[in-house]
Amino acid sequence: MNVDGDRLREDIERTAEFGAIESDEGRGRTVRAASDENGEAREYFVSRLEDAGLEVRVDAVGNVVGRWVPEGADPDLPPVAAGSHLDSVPEGGIFDGPLGTYAALEAVRTMQEAGAEPERPIAVVSFTEEEGGRFASGMLGSSVATGERSVEEALALEDEEGTTLEEALEAIGFRGEGRVNAAGWEAWLELHIEQSERLETVGVPVGIVTDITGITHCDVTIVGEANHAGATPMKDRTDALAAASEFVLDVERAANEVVASESDTAVGTVGSLSVEPNATNVVPGRIECGVDIRDIEYDSMNEIVSRARLSLARLERERGVGTSLEREFDVEPVAMAERCRTAAREAGEAAGIKTMAMHSGAAHDTMQVARVTDAGLLFAPSRGGYSHTPKEWTDWADCANATRVLAGGMARLAGTTLSERV
Amino acid sequence: MNVDGDRLREDIERTAEFGAIESDEGRGRTVRAASDENGEAREYFVSRLEDAGLEVRVDAVGNVVGRWVPEGADPDLPPVAAGSHLDSVPEGGIFDGPLGTYAALEAVRTMQEAGAEPERPIAVVSFTEEEGGRFASGMLGSSVATGERSVEEALALEDEEGTTLEEALEAIGFRGEGRVNAAGWEAWLELHIEQSERLETVGVPVGIVTDITGITHCDVTIVGEANHAGATPMKDRTDALAAASEFVLDVERAANEVVASESDTAVGTVGSLSVEPNATNVVPGRIECGVDIRDIEYDSMNEIVSRARLSLARLERERGVGTSLEREFDVEPVAMAERCRTAAREAGEAAGIKTMAMHSGAAHDTMQVARVTDAGLLFAPSRGGYSHTPKEWTDWADCANATRVLAGGMARLAGTTLSERV
Repeated sequence: MNVDGDRLREDIERTAEFGAIESDEGRGRTVRAASDENGEAREYFVSRLEDAGLEVRVDAVGNVVGRWVPEGADPDLPPVAAGSHLDSVPEGGIFDGPLGTYAALEAVRTMQEAGAEPERPIAVVSFTEEEGGRFASGMLGSSVATGERSVEEALALEDEEGTTLEEALEAIGFRGEGRVNAAGWEAWLELHIEQSERLETVGVPVGIVTDITGITHCDVTIVGEANHAGATPMKDRTDALAAASEFVLDVERAANEVVASESDTAVGTVGSLSVEPNATNVVPGRIECGVDIRDIEYDSMNEIVSRARLSLARLERERGVGTSLEREFDVEPVAMAERCRTAAREAGEAAGIKTMAMHSGAAHDTMQVARVTDAGLLFAPSRGGYSHTPKEWTDWADCANATRVLAGGMARLAGTTLSERV
Repeated sequence: MNVDGDRLREDIERTAEFGAIESDEGRGRTVRAASDENGEAREYFVSRLEDAGLEVRVDAVGNVVGRWVPEGADPDLPPVAAGSHLDSVPEGGIFDGPLGTYAALEAVRTMQEAGAEPERPIAVVSFTEEEGGRFASGMLGSSVATGERSVEEALALEDEEGTTLEEALEAIGFRGEGRVNAAGWEAWLELHIEQSERLETVGVPVGIVTDITGITHCDVTIVGEANHAGATPMKDRTDALAAASEFVLDVERAANEVVASESDTAVGTVGSLSVEPNATNVVPGRIECGVDIRDIEYDSMNEIVSRARLSLARLERERGVGTSLEREFDVEPVAMAERCRTAAREAGEAAGIKTMAMHSGAAHDTMQVARVTDAGLLFAPSRGGYSHTPKEWTDWADCANATRVLAGGMARLAGTTLSERV
């Protein structure tokens, strides 16, 4: 089987036109979930599914599925599913999402043209709002497909203007019926850009993910006493920013120590921080900051959270600040299914394309799907590791190679006979 | 001489009604410079000056002066001036500014009623925009009165909506003519709330300022590399917030060390800090922060700035960040005139009111005036040290006592004969 790299590229480039932005840094797009631009991207996707003879279904939260029942396949068998998403972050890149969505479709077209006859149906999927930021914090459509979130709850989510997901989907004509049920899938594969530079650094074109890291977000508040920066002697201060600065460095140190001693995939980041009243001439009175902690070992994540709590307790004692830490988001790491990894590895070997095992530090829809069925995640190289920016880039040859591995993996999971696999 | 505390209180409470805000914490007001509320406060002030028989003048930038030529005084002699300002910060208190303005007027009324006949005229002054934040960074009217800033430059300053000071003053009827010239004053006294809690702590009702600290503001930028908080290993990061955290602590340490070794009045504060892109799941790429450094010793201020620069140089070496420090505002410390301090100290002794020498960590219009004539600054206690908040409070008895000292000081500087002073 040999994928048509030009056809894949055309689909990605056409999709890049919807919500395209001006940028000196590369080709960018802004495609918020259920926006007009997202509607255009969805229309094009549906038309391409139909061009390939797939039966299209849109569920209540706008997840789109194209179903292919190959000649001779049993339509009642659970299908093998693959796909990704079409939405983007504001001023994001053109590969994050569309690559995996159209690679899944290209895999089907390739199998069709190769005369492959898998035993199982194949589903090509685009999930609603993977990126988050409009209605939810991310992975919205996939969380409904796995039953983690109800359809009703999802439809009632509002954006900043008070528009519900339901209203926004109706406006673009993608408020369908029922619920795509990922638990009914035989297996799932997603191809995504790596968003890091490990593949580029070692010169391997395809990554096969072993584990997706868990993610903890902590909301931390540090309260001191706002005071006149001129009239308040150093010894009389309870400076919330000075205390927060120790906290930031303690989180960094905790992550570095866990990396050195327990798990070299751990990361800890204070990514956001706001100061009140935030005037140069006022001693800071209150800090709110957001901490992101991830690893493929849940114990290591807990260790970093625990050290963050110890840091705050010390700051209360030593600096007299008040503190709070709320672990407001917590998802455990997820291992990819051995059979999905094997299918992809064998597909790479059969096609003569090098693959390497690696973990994913970023969350993806696959993280959701893996909770209800066997799931696998493939990575294509990101030039310079850039993502969520117009600088995001994956060479077209790399897109095609990764899609060959995806197609081979899907074919294997769907039960194509050996002779049809290569 | 005995001031009328009730009359003073009535003037301050009437002034508190203009721009009054709802607050559970105390009596607050929002009176931005040249706003409608400021116009009302000015109208009331003018009427009170006229009630006391003073001749009112408004200059081109809205500085208001009420002039009293006592019976027998030489109108050509340089006057003794006193006053403060009527504008406030947003949601500020009711004493910061109005106390000093009406205390100066009350001093004149008291002298009039006591039959005091100073040799020199006396000027009661309210300067335009002491607080800053609308047209300038503060001390706007006094900087024009000292010639540091031209009338033209001041009138052309714009607020956020693009309204010029000139337009705003015309709208409230306070765009006068000419320029109040502080260099033509024999001497200047200002009574202000302390905005700190030293007087309250030691139980002394009046402070006599020896020096006003100098102020340096530095704009600091620290540039790292924004990256995915999940996909970027700890060792591959250039985290601008972690670097900035070291900087904040280095500035704090530098100030503490200077306090311990050189000058116990030194302070150093990182009061403002902003993070880009400021998302919990992104390694911070860029920090901008504002540093406030003050002392009555300019050498000590320079020492802290120098250590801040060393900190940034170290962070460039050790963390690979790019940094810049711009000393965008720099005013040297100012000593109060010995004769003004003596006049106030003697007035306190004569009235049986305890005074203590202290420095001012906050800037005031007096800081400007002291560059062109002999100047003195008095403090009344601030309960709990609160200022720039509705929590700001000074007991009415303390207001009256401080006004007695101010009145006695003004009388002495204006050449009242000894028998009339007490």
